[in-house]
Amino acid sequence: MATEETRTVQEAYPMMGGDGLYSYAKNSTQQRKAIDSAKELIKKAIAEKLDKEILLSPKSFRIADLGCSVGPNTFFAAQNVLAAVGSKYKSEGLNSQIPDVQVFFSDHSSNDFNQLFTSLPQDRRYYAAGVPGSFHGRLFPKNSLHFVHSSFAIQWLSRAPKEVVNKNSPAWNKGRIHYSNSGDEVVLAYKAQYDKDMQQFLQARAQEIVCGGLMVLIVPGIPNGTHHSQCLPSLTFEILGSCLMDLARKGIISEEKVDSFNLPIYNMSPQELEAAVERNGCFSIEGVEYLPLVIPNISGESKINGQVLASYLRAAMEGIIKHYQHFGEEILDVIFDSYGKKIEENSSIFKFGKAVYFLIILKRIAKN
Amino acid sequence: MATEETRTVQEAYPMMGGDGLYSYAKNSTQQRKAIDSAKELIKKAIAEKLDKEILLSPKSFRIADLGCSVGPNTFFAAQNVLAAVGSKYKSEGLNSQIPDVQVFFSDHSSNDFNQLFTSLPQDRRYYAAGVPGSFHGRLFPKNSLHFVHSSFAIQWLSRAPKEVVNKNSPAWNKGRIHYSNSGDEVVLAYKAQYDKDMQQFLQARAQEIVCGGLMVLIVPGIPNGTHHSQCLPSLTFEILGSCLMDLARKGIISEEKVDSFNLPIYNMSPQELEAAVERNGCFSIEGVEYLPLVIPNISGESKINGQVLASYLRAAMEGIIKHYQHFGEEILDVIFDSYGKKIEENSSIFKFGKAVYFLIILKRIAKN
Repeated sequence: MATEETRTVQEAYPMMGGDGLYSYAKNSTQQRKAIDSAKELIKKAIAEKLDKEILLSPKSFRIADLGCSVGPNTFFAAQNVLAAVGSKYKSEGLNSQIPDVQVFFSDHSSNDFNQLFTSLPQDRRYYAAGVPGSFHGRLFPKNSLHFVHSSFAIQWLSRAPKEVVNKNSPAWNKGRIHYSNSGDEVVLAYKAQYDKDMQQFLQARAQEIVCGGLMVLIVPGIPNGTHHSQCLPSLTFEILGSCLMDLARKGIISEEKVDSFNLPIYNMSPQELEAAVERNGCFSIEGVEYLPLVIPNISGESKINGQVLASYLRAAMEGIIKHYQHFGEEILDVIFDSYGKKIEENSSIFKFGKAVYFLIILKRIAKN
Repeated sequence: MATEETRTVQEAYPMMGGDGLYSYAKNSTQQRKAIDSAKELIKKAIAEKLDKEILLSPKSFRIADLGCSVGPNTFFAAQNVLAAVGSKYKSEGLNSQIPDVQVFFSDHSSNDFNQLFTSLPQDRRYYAAGVPGSFHGRLFPKNSLHFVHSSFAIQWLSRAPKEVVNKNSPAWNKGRIHYSNSGDEVVLAYKAQYDKDMQQFLQARAQEIVCGGLMVLIVPGIPNGTHHSQCLPSLTFEILGSCLMDLARKGIISEEKVDSFNLPIYNMSPQELEAAVERNGCFSIEGVEYLPLVIPNISGESKINGQVLASYLRAAMEGIIKHYQHFGEEILDVIFDSYGKKIEENSSIFKFGKAVYFLIILKRIAKN
């Protein structure tokens, strides 16, 4: 049984379902912009990197979107891949041989698949399926996928590292929920968890993707060489953490709970992901590209709107905060209202902090 | 736009989700008994009828359960098929070549897939996927399935026939919701809808199932040669219809609504299904078997428990009654309470009416 010391965030908390005010469906426009920018890059990757043998071999072409959430972004992504595959068949003169396409939408079993299924595009030209489970493990039969897509998902770890909630560990992360303001030990614990999780992710995909198949990952990360204290996503999480600590100081929630709550997110740099891929050895890196990133106020052009930023964060984080050790639904409005104000007061983080959206193209190669 | 005359029941109303008092999960023990009886028959069919080529060809073995509802029966069925496939590989000396198995659980998109996914057996030895959509159309890529299972599902039509709600048609089914007490015109309209739907079902499966692949259908039907007035399921639906008419007479719901409400269910005989298969021409009939049917009071051994029977029917019918043209949730308790009493008063239908559960084994053959 978990003790107070070893309890960490390790269950799956999906993006906010439904289509209400704080739903992920209505608060994922940033991600949408990145997916739109990725469209041409994916088309190019499929045109240039997908072997003709892959086109000719399958009876059906199978695509998976991992960490699909509830849409609509997952449908845009599927549509983009589908269009690119169609173009590739045409450009190879294989127009008459385009096979049936099956798209697997995958996310944790607690994802709102009901919402996903009822909002599937009516005019889709593929067979849709949902696959529940964690992408840190196997989800599909061996050699069954031809293209894997994952967008804004692999920054999620399978769990927060054990050490950061252990009072006796030098990595104990007291009073914080992420690592930008933490000592090196905390960051190393997160990095070790990331290394382990990413190897599991890559090993599972290596078994599922046919040789020659492609995987495109879109990642919210940090530039190469960024010090953890400048990690912009983490800086925003720390502000969220300080809102929780404010509530603890007022006696509304317990300080121990905040201490034991650490977000299972690691914002990797392109180099870190490339190193993980090389260590795994089953994929070749076919390209790394940066996607446009709209950071409010960084150019001085747009004033920060704390409420809007709070809505974005709430869509992604509401589930984990609500369920974690009974923080409870009643604190949500207070927390995110407070977050909206604090982020405006601390808008300097958007000048100081660093973030990138990047895309990596991998090809499954025969292992030596 | 649909006029009052042409409106019929044609949307999809899944079995009651969740795990509450009237949930399908808690009220499908009759179906469970049939699935258990089917277990040995399925094992025998796979042992004797599944070609060795099918075992050797696929990289993964793909099974679909059509009309899966929310479990647990669909998991038992998947487990039975999986065990039988495993035995077959062993008996053919192909123990080391057992491929990964993928099981597709399919039902209408309004089915409670969230409940299905969160209740998947933890120790399952297959990769699970959900497929939303109607089995009267295509659900899977061409030649992608090796075994299809469907239990207590293909009696559902894609819609009630148009004629039965058309005041100007000789098939107008005024004051009734099914056909056991109706004229031949009504039965013929239902039969025509069944013929059309079953051809669509078989044609879709013919494209999806690989040559040599098997399909096992478990059907709640009627014995060959039964007159429609003796169709037991329909006799029970008529009692439900009379409960609705009672409410109409009291002015609680409108009589027009009851007139326009007809259940999209056709209880076929084995011969009718065999004829449909022969007409389609893509499958050989490898066997037809009867499953034990527990009809209360038919042997005089057990007294009818109206409440229990009402719970069974409610689990299957609550959705369609609640949603159909705003009959509304508030009438449900009244309706099924009244049904429980009436079915006890009319227990003679269990002596007079006829019903069978049967199983048909089909193999996909190369078309001439």
